[in-house]
Amino acid sequence: MLHPDRLFPADPTTRRIARELYEAIADLPIVSPHGHTDPSWFAQNPRFEDAASLFLTPDHYVLRMLRSRGLDYDDLGVPRRDGAPVAAPRAAWKHFAAHYDLFLGTPSRLWIDHALNWGFGIEEPLNEHTADRIFDQIGERLKSDDLRPRSVLDRAGIEVIATTEFALDPLEPQAELEKLGLTQRVRTTYRPDDVCDPDRPDFAENLARLGALTDCDTRQWSGMIEAHRRRRATFRRFGATATDHGVPTAHTADLAEPDKQPLLDRVLSQNATPEDARLFRAQMLTEMAALSVEDGMVMQIHAGVRRNTDPTLMRERGPDRGADIPVPVSPVQDLAPLLTRFGTAPGFQLIFFCLDETAYARELAPMAGYWPALLLGPPWWFHDSPRGIARYLDAVVESAGFYNLAGFNDDTRALLSIPVRHDVWRRGVASFLADMVERKTLGQAQAQDIARHLSTDAARHAYKMDNA
Amino acid sequence: MLHPDRLFPADPTTRRIARELYEAIADLPIVSPHGHTDPSWFAQNPRFEDAASLFLTPDHYVLRMLRSRGLDYDDLGVPRRDGAPVAAPRAAWKHFAAHYDLFLGTPSRLWIDHALNWGFGIEEPLNEHTADRIFDQIGERLKSDDLRPRSVLDRAGIEVIATTEFALDPLEPQAELEKLGLTQRVRTTYRPDDVCDPDRPDFAENLARLGALTDCDTRQWSGMIEAHRRRRATFRRFGATATDHGVPTAHTADLAEPDKQPLLDRVLSQNATPEDARLFRAQMLTEMAALSVEDGMVMQIHAGVRRNTDPTLMRERGPDRGADIPVPVSPVQDLAPLLTRFGTAPGFQLIFFCLDETAYARELAPMAGYWPALLLGPPWWFHDSPRGIARYLDAVVESAGFYNLAGFNDDTRALLSIPVRHDVWRRGVASFLADMVERKTLGQAQAQDIARHLSTDAARHAYKMDNA
Amino acid sequence: MLHPDRLFPADPTTRRIARELYEAIADLPIVSPHGHTDPSWFAQNPRFEDAASLFLTPDHYVLRMLRSRGLDYDDLGVPRRDGAPVAAPRAAWKHFAAHYDLFLGTPSRLWIDHALNWGFGIEEPLNEHTADRIFDQIGERLKSDDLRPRSVLDRAGIEVIATTEFALDPLEPQAELEKLGLTQRVRTTYRPDDVCDPDRPDFAENLARLGALTDCDTRQWSGMIEAHRRRRATFRRFGATATDHGVPTAHTADLAEPDKQPLLDRVLSQNATPEDARLFRAQMLTEMAALSVEDGMVMQIHAGVRRNTDPTLMRERGPDRGADIPVPVSPVQDLAPLLTRFGTAPGFQLIFFCLDETAYARELAPMAGYWPALLLGPPWWFHDSPRGIARYLDAVVESAGFYNLAGFNDDTRALLSIPVRHDVWRRGVASFLADMVERKTLGQAQAQDIARHLSTDAARHAYKMDNA
Repeated sequence: MLHPDRLFPADPTTRRIARELYEAIADLPIVSPHGHTDPSWFAQNPRFEDAASLFLTPDHYVLRMLRSRGLDYDDLGVPRRDGAPVAAPRAAWKHFAAHYDLFLGTPSRLWIDHALNWGFGIEEPLNEHTADRIFDQIGERLKSDDLRPRSVLDRAGIEVIATTEFALDPLEPQAELEKLGLTQRVRTTYRPDDVCDPDRPDFAENLARLGALTDCDTRQWSGMIEAHRRRRATFRRFGATATDHGVPTAHTADLAEPDKQPLLDRVLSQNATPEDARLFRAQMLTEMAALSVEDGMVMQIHAGVRRNTDPTLMRERGPDRGADIPVPVSPVQDLAPLLTRFGTAPGFQLIFFCLDETAYARELAPMAGYWPALLLGPPWWFHDSPRGIARYLDAVVESAGFYNLAGFNDDTRALLSIPVRHDVWRRGVASFLADMVERKTLGQAQAQDIARHLSTDAARHAYKMDNA
Repeated sequence: MLHPDRLFPADPTTRRIARELYEAIADLPIVSPHGHTDPSWFAQNPRFEDAASLFLTPDHYVLRMLRSRGLDYDDLGVPRRDGAPVAAPRAAWKHFAAHYDLFLGTPSRLWIDHALNWGFGIEEPLNEHTADRIFDQIGERLKSDDLRPRSVLDRAGIEVIATTEFALDPLEPQAELEKLGLTQRVRTTYRPDDVCDPDRPDFAENLARLGALTDCDTRQWSGMIEAHRRRRATFRRFGATATDHGVPTAHTADLAEPDKQPLLDRVLSQNATPEDARLFRAQMLTEMAALSVEDGMVMQIHAGVRRNTDPTLMRERGPDRGADIPVPVSPVQDLAPLLTRFGTAPGFQLIFFCLDETAYARELAPMAGYWPALLLGPPWWFHDSPRGIARYLDAVVESAGFYNLAGFNDDTRALLSIPVRHDVWRRGVASFLADMVERKTLGQAQAQDIARHLSTDAARHAYKMDNA
Repeated sequence: MLHPDRLFPADPTTRRIARELYEAIADLPIVSPHGHTDPSWFAQNPRFEDAASLFLTPDHYVLRMLRSRGLDYDDLGVPRRDGAPVAAPRAAWKHFAAHYDLFLGTPSRLWIDHALNWGFGIEEPLNEHTADRIFDQIGERLKSDDLRPRSVLDRAGIEVIATTEFALDPLEPQAELEKLGLTQRVRTTYRPDDVCDPDRPDFAENLARLGALTDCDTRQWSGMIEAHRRRRATFRRFGATATDHGVPTAHTADLAEPDKQPLLDRVLSQNATPEDARLFRAQMLTEMAALSVEDGMVMQIHAGVRRNTDPTLMRERGPDRGADIPVPVSPVQDLAPLLTRFGTAPGFQLIFFCLDETAYARELAPMAGYWPALLLGPPWWFHDSPRGIARYLDAVVESAGFYNLAGFNDDTRALLSIPVRHDVWRRGVASFLADMVERKTLGQAQAQDIARHLSTDAARHAYKMDNA
């Protein structure tokens, strides 16, 4: 089911070079500095329940594709906000398996096939005939201890993994992880979207809660900044080396001091305009950069997604169900205020991700090839795929080189997909480099160094996890 | 002149796989669900006149390239609005042939070389030396019955072909086709641009004529909608399964009921603003979607072309002479009103085409991978080419899979180019799939199924022509 | 260090074809119709100083990448505006060499490796261990006469080279070149950005100086145009066949006559708005086109760069130090006024360059495939690279053909990189064509003709240097 030469270039000589490069990096540890796994998995180490809750219901990549061809989310076991019953796990799994051909050609299929094999020793293809049997096999295997979350970290060679928590998260699993001595291995990340986006209905309340948590007056600009400063310190105690910011656009702003408090007053009032909200988000990115310069946390920006484009779905089943779609980004213009201020600040590292591939060769690679602070995040989300990786390297390397890239991160909530995602990246890197070797623009030893760098070291450096 | 392995990948193993995949689909029937051939050809089955009127004067791909290097449209026999004389067919053909090297590297050359060979048995290259002889050979062959339009359908294996008529078209050829029992084979398509675009100088008059045709008061919003409802039914009687909408942008709107009549009043008045016209077009797309939900017609949107960018040409010789140029599109934002309303409506199918390839990986493939209604149209116009097809599949398959694609359509007014355009698509599909097989991400049997699907079934399903 | 098959496709058969195509064009003369070498080099034929001033300090491609990974411009010997001392050449060179791995995968490394070998016979790799020795070797070789600028022209087979001078340039080297009989070989280019951009602080003064130079009243619109007319004639005396226009966007305008003088009055006043400045630049492009129609000079537009995106750098060390970054362009919309007016004017040639690759397949190739005046400039700046060349040909040839391309130009101030840049282009062209030959869409003889055309003749024709 999994051919050892999968994803390598077709030309036999280039393939041989790719295989050699790959073999030397295949078993390197995994550094996973950005993602969305559940920290309580690692704190409490529970057993996973069944095939459907592992591979189907939490994976919006998978759900969306089934819906796109007319399948009903009820029949796939996706919970409803109104609590009405949906399909049970086995029925949902069988429905999914019967339509598994929809995933031909997609990375989801690569990941699931690989994870079924790697995690459960499944050798037969998933389809309507094998669905029941595979469901049972998975259920049986999940009873063993070596598929509990912490065992998965060990089996997969995950040296370090970062989860992502909002600013107001109570961080309870992190307190347990601290007791277990796992804070350096399972790190949190500070994602203050809950207190930086005035368009959220609970924004004012959230900001007040942040004030209460940190003993600051968050109705005052300076108090709000101090609250972030303190909350970031708490996150660092739980292993955080980085912050993350999910924003609809990459707009940043650098307001004069006297303009800040009036802006905060407006977004806390009932009369805030959309432009006020936009400006507040833009200014907060620059404020977060200022705090990063101060406290050394690496800053990540994930920009350019229109969230919840299907209001009906949002109403029925909530967010993260497959209706988030990329839109264009304009990094040169949008990041100018932040970079002008902090683009050369010593020690500051800003990792930028976007889903608009057109910005890579045109803007991001040239920018990363100039600004000391800027590193390019790996191909994200829809572009975390064999062809997405190939297009990314094609577009960025000539202008940014290899050393302005932040390596790879999997950005997933699907624990079992982590090793395969890193494997696809490493195969992609080996293939790209093999082509350069065969076309005589890189020596094989140089290629091997770069392959190793992009597999692990680049991520360690980018996220300041060198001592992990 | 036509190598059997043309367009296949260079790597010998991959080429062998591509050839095998191709051989199993090469002779499948042709389903041509969108195009611009003249329905009277099939109704009256006349003889074509000569080489120039077959290959040169009606083909704006060809004319434009000759003009771009300074050739005069008079010398190419392109009719003038002022009736002044232009070159005769033979002279025009010789002028074209003498500059045929301009087409090296372009799909036009592939199509013409193939059609000369397939239709007329021409084996020698077209150039200034052979132009006269080939003109004569074509003229001679055109006298035989097997190059009349209906014979071409048979010889090319065209199972079904759709033409495109404006809402006010008298549909006379269709009435003849009905008598001949050909309505299921030569289908019309409802393209109401003539009554949906207030920027046309004849818009108000056209809307009145639509009212007269359907016995509705089209000055009233509800009467106008009813007129469309009736006219669509007439088109369905003549085989239409689909509508088509050519729009400068993909803007859609979903106005509240009370806002509709005032908008119609404004665009029928002398005081309409450009924004009124834009909003009317946007709202009419959503209205057409509503009617499709009601009557089951498949909806097509062709968006993102700036028409007639050379006013001098327009004045001298009218539209469709080569000066239409693509512009960017923003599908996420523009289609939101329509999709929010009808994106999950049962049975509704919306096929979207654009010429802005940057929207494919960023927006359209993710959207098609979510919305049940949305299917991606094939690479259109300038991108209906070997490299355009390769870029399209590269950009869309990983996020949309193979089953959210609408297969292929040729969108041409050049009858003899239809078999070759489908052949180039099939070779492109076989090449893409062979690469996946050789790189071990798809089994050969799966690849063969997908190749067959993309050659015919995808188009049949997308256009609800399954029972054709 | 330089493999003879470098950059050719991996597939052995295709590689063989590429090599054959390349061998027939490798030694053709170099036509370099656009660039930024210093004309005094050719007039005075001095010796170059040392390795650092040849390869490091003037090359913003190189400087930027070093800065992006935290190196200090002081340590690289980049002069400061405040005159504070910076590293001496040897120290700067050693610092650069120690970080030369940053350039792996970039065209800069290709160019420098090639130039070290071609110019100085260096066979060992540049790194911290070899830096001193190579610095000495270069210094030694620079004492020989065959590395003086005019000898480099001969050794590299540079048939003709164009430099670029602003409208107010005193053209002193050109006067010397005229005495030496070199005006046809070292040509200037008219670049009137200094008198066309009201956003420059010295704009009004510059326009007055242009008036003084040409004995025209440049406060009057007609006088200003006449001043350009005369200044262009002076440039033509010194070999210029072309003008060049560096503009932030490609906006053009075609104002009515009565609106022109008031616009000039506004931009010369203290009250000009940014929109006035934009409109003036836009109108001046159309005026320059009008003068080109009149005097036959080829017009070049280089659009879509945000200059000096790091204000701190600008303040410390001035422009052209690596902080210029591309932004999107919209050629269909922006060029409409100019092309509507002059797009079909006999003899007018407009060569358009941009750094937004997304515009190539979508807008520029279709436009070049229609408008007689429009030719596509080669991949520019960040895209003058092996992958940039491959993407360019992939994107433009199918819609524009080969004969609407302006061939290659190197656009460099680095004299020794000229032969290698042309070599990379020729290898890229040979590789692209070899793939077509192997995939049977082009005959080998046709491919050879096109390879030759794109290597030299295309540039000669595009720049009207046919008789050079």
